[in-house]
Amino acid sequence: MEPIDFRTEPGRYRHWRIEIDGEVAFLVMDVDPAGGLSADYELKLNSYDLAVDIELNDAVQRLRFEHPQVRAVVLKSGKDNVFCAGANIRMLGKATHGHKVNFCKYTNETRLAIEDACANSGQAYLAAVRGSCAGGGYELALAADHIMLVDDRRSTVSLPETPLLGVLPGTGGLTRVTDKRKVRRDRADVFCSTEEGLRGVKAVEWRLVDEVVPNSKWDEAVKTKAHALAARSDRPLDAKGIKLTPLARRMNGDAVAYSHVGLDLDRARGIATLTARGPSNAAPASVAAAHAQGAGFWPLALARELEDAILHLRANEPAIGLVIFRTEGDAHGVLGHDALLGENDWLMREVRHYLKRVLKRIDVTSRSFVALIEPGTCFAGTLAELVFAADRSLMLIGARDGDNKPPAAVTLGEANFGFYPMGNGLTRLETRFLGDPPCVEGLRAKVGAPLQADEADALGLVTGTVESYDWDDELRVMLEERASFSPDALTGMEANLRFAGPETMETKIFGRLTAWQNWIFQRPNAVGAQGALKLYGSGVQATFDKERV
Amino acid sequence: MEPIDFRTEPGRYRHWRIEIDGEVAFLVMDVDPAGGLSADYELKLNSYDLAVDIELNDAVQRLRFEHPQVRAVVLKSGKDNVFCAGANIRMLGKATHGHKVNFCKYTNETRLAIEDACANSGQAYLAAVRGSCAGGGYELALAADHIMLVDDRRSTVSLPETPLLGVLPGTGGLTRVTDKRKVRRDRADVFCSTEEGLRGVKAVEWRLVDEVVPNSKWDEAVKTKAHALAARSDRPLDAKGIKLTPLARRMNGDAVAYSHVGLDLDRARGIATLTARGPSNAAPASVAAAHAQGAGFWPLALARELEDAILHLRANEPAIGLVIFRTEGDAHGVLGHDALLGENDWLMREVRHYLKRVLKRIDVTSRSFVALIEPGTCFAGTLAELVFAADRSLMLIGARDGDNKPPAAVTLGEANFGFYPMGNGLTRLETRFLGDPPCVEGLRAKVGAPLQADEADALGLVTGTVESYDWDDELRVMLEERASFSPDALTGMEANLRFAGPETMETKIFGRLTAWQNWIFQRPNAVGAQGALKLYGSGVQATFDKERV
Repeated sequence: MEPIDFRTEPGRYRHWRIEIDGEVAFLVMDVDPAGGLSADYELKLNSYDLAVDIELNDAVQRLRFEHPQVRAVVLKSGKDNVFCAGANIRMLGKATHGHKVNFCKYTNETRLAIEDACANSGQAYLAAVRGSCAGGGYELALAADHIMLVDDRRSTVSLPETPLLGVLPGTGGLTRVTDKRKVRRDRADVFCSTEEGLRGVKAVEWRLVDEVVPNSKWDEAVKTKAHALAARSDRPLDAKGIKLTPLARRMNGDAVAYSHVGLDLDRARGIATLTARGPSNAAPASVAAAHAQGAGFWPLALARELEDAILHLRANEPAIGLVIFRTEGDAHGVLGHDALLGENDWLMREVRHYLKRVLKRIDVTSRSFVALIEPGTCFAGTLAELVFAADRSLMLIGARDGDNKPPAAVTLGEANFGFYPMGNGLTRLETRFLGDPPCVEGLRAKVGAPLQADEADALGLVTGTVESYDWDDELRVMLEERASFSPDALTGMEANLRFAGPETMETKIFGRLTAWQNWIFQRPNAVGAQGALKLYGSGVQATFDKERV
Repeated sequence: MEPIDFRTEPGRYRHWRIEIDGEVAFLVMDVDPAGGLSADYELKLNSYDLAVDIELNDAVQRLRFEHPQVRAVVLKSGKDNVFCAGANIRMLGKATHGHKVNFCKYTNETRLAIEDACANSGQAYLAAVRGSCAGGGYELALAADHIMLVDDRRSTVSLPETPLLGVLPGTGGLTRVTDKRKVRRDRADVFCSTEEGLRGVKAVEWRLVDEVVPNSKWDEAVKTKAHALAARSDRPLDAKGIKLTPLARRMNGDAVAYSHVGLDLDRARGIATLTARGPSNAAPASVAAAHAQGAGFWPLALARELEDAILHLRANEPAIGLVIFRTEGDAHGVLGHDALLGENDWLMREVRHYLKRVLKRIDVTSRSFVALIEPGTCFAGTLAELVFAADRSLMLIGARDGDNKPPAAVTLGEANFGFYPMGNGLTRLETRFLGDPPCVEGLRAKVGAPLQADEADALGLVTGTVESYDWDDELRVMLEERASFSPDALTGMEANLRFAGPETMETKIFGRLTAWQNWIFQRPNAVGAQGALKLYGSGVQATFDKERV
């Protein structure tokens, strides 16, 4: 099978249109039934598969970078009678367990990216719901800041997964109903058990949508609301967007190469090495100079390449159980670029939040991550974040004999103290030192200094330090040991250990909701020969084992 | 098979001893290998099954009620060389999925009951760990406020589930390591992957235990620490304990009868009706009079019976998918008893917290709950909490023709405003009205007034109201519809919708950790013919499907 490609661009979209009208963009969902990832199913009624969501993610991203003047985005349907029918059920019924899980993870990340655009980028989303809006369709609307529903007696919102399919709304629906929309739990229970959903004023009263609008006033009301949302934005009025040029990558058997990121795959051992390279040149002299570099600005290029590499690993390389993080380059170059990211500028803000989202993709990726800090590596500032995102790090003490590379070092930067909060709302350093919060403040004094092994260890920044003569053995034993464990137990263990501290709507979605959905995705009542997901659309009723677990 | 009986008493213990020395109690784990629930396995090395935990739960409970003078409890082993080897693996390997899940749920509740005793009852727990303390054994220690480890080169703490068994430490271990002990996540990763565990000063440095003590000073140090913990207690010095007399219950086919609680089972339809009856007499005139009633004091009797009924349903009636809550009795009687529970008295405090824990057992029970509010029911104060704990409630409007019972009503009491916080730290009313917090304050003005259907509905207290002539049809349709859904989807849906708002260590354990563990408990890598849990102890190595999901 062809690997799934997460790269796209508007000229190649088959399912979405971006229509821009000044400060308002319309993101129009108009799914091509024949445009799914597989010919096994048709994407009828604006139902979606991963191919559709890859375009949506791309569109959300480009609206932020390429269209600084866009301050409000209207999500609407290009079809009559249906807003969106949700994830395609035939696709779900045929998909492997791994694909279902990865599909839900990615769609969840896209919905969160929409919320991130509003919270951090001054780009508000408005869901203009006309026609039926079911399951994943309503979950898409839930990601918006404001939901408008036309009052035409047939436009409804619904989460029919439990009654129809024997699974959960798996893209944040349950959590957003209770925690974002704050629907009363007994009403949520009724709503999530009601196949046909709700409409009209009752949908407003139950907090499922923000307003209903008569058909005759629809277009005008949507426009007015979009401009009202736009008016609250802090996006620049006269800035020039940055074109996200095509992402070049070369794949050849067991290597994937980008300009700043490389991936080497050892499938037999289940290990990938992801190398991130620092900038080739010194940082641009000013924010304006950074703008002039466009998509070539190193932190932006890094974010795009790192994201693509992680998504590629997840979707196309299930045999890889462990990813080694390596870095190369010059710490000063990284810190220089980081300094620009801290500037008060719309593009620097976008790049910062993009890197934040990419690092969060790592946090929810079910692979073990190990950072190797050796002579010549460049774990500084933004790149040091990979050490704190990893499940473990191993650091070589000093330099290697007969090697002219400088001693292994970690260099902290301002980026590690607030640029990249995790899903739990804390920085990785704050999460790391929950048991001793003053440590984090203490670390600020070390910003910019290359910290060698003994100091990094004493400061709690690395998991273990190893003499150069023990390095190879120690590493081999660690990798072999990890490879001998149950991949499922590792997935569960990492999903728990990575998220200490507070829970947010976001961590609830990935922790509580996703874990339950994955459980249900394994159960015969959903995916067995007589299961509801398997039999949907066949005309045959599912047969359930009624035992409650 | 005989139903699992959750009732026990110290005279019948086979696995634990309670040794009381003034203000300090020693809770000695000394598991009888032949005393498990089944003869299929031997409980070697202080490993445990549900039978062992039923006794532990009973002991924790009795220490609070029967021994007010006990201010510190020392958890220790009665065996040489081993503190506790954790859950018995042969038992887990042979258990059904449902039993494993229920077993973990119950042990989690017991560990939380230990933490509740410390947080709310002035009874501190000290884990005195001597010998190996592995898996569930360390999870038991983690429930204590203070963990002491003997420094003898062979006493270790460990969570070897992932490396040895391909599952997670399922009784809160991962969450307590990161969120209670606040172990750095990379160290937690190393610790949870290290079969042999950690010992000595490193265990302290990594925050896994609070102190290590040389063997020669062990007994003295444990005693000294226990008294130091006791000194911080606010428990009364001269109070008389309340004997938890044997809980009488009659079972006959499809009915279970207690003095204030009844359970009627309709297994063919998958429905149980749980009836809770208010007190037969007016409330005692004083706290002292309540003490004199002992275990017969209505709220205490209710808590014990309700708890036993819920546990019985969970463990022994898997065909029951839905539980109807009914109540009978006199609202004044309930509110009168509730008023006593609000008094500043050690026993009233114990009863209040006990009812809180029983209601929390409902919150995590994977059955649908529906409260039916009809003429003659008594949903007042503590009993009204059943309406708010239910997934839905249905209320009859007014009275029934030709019926002399008063109109259906809900009566709020002080108990609904703080006696019984959920696992998320909020009351059920606060959780219910997250979308409109002022509602809760507004409801205070209604305390004591019987609220009939229209008013209860307007105040948001019930899900739906129904005219008497529609009642039977409406109810039948609702019950049939619920019964037609996938029980797994309902379990997942309820586990999400019931816990809106903040997450705590407790909700994380039941939400995130448990959901992941249940997923892993289904996976072939754990429970398939070549799975790690299945093959443990057989000498044959597990074979894993290495694909990461």
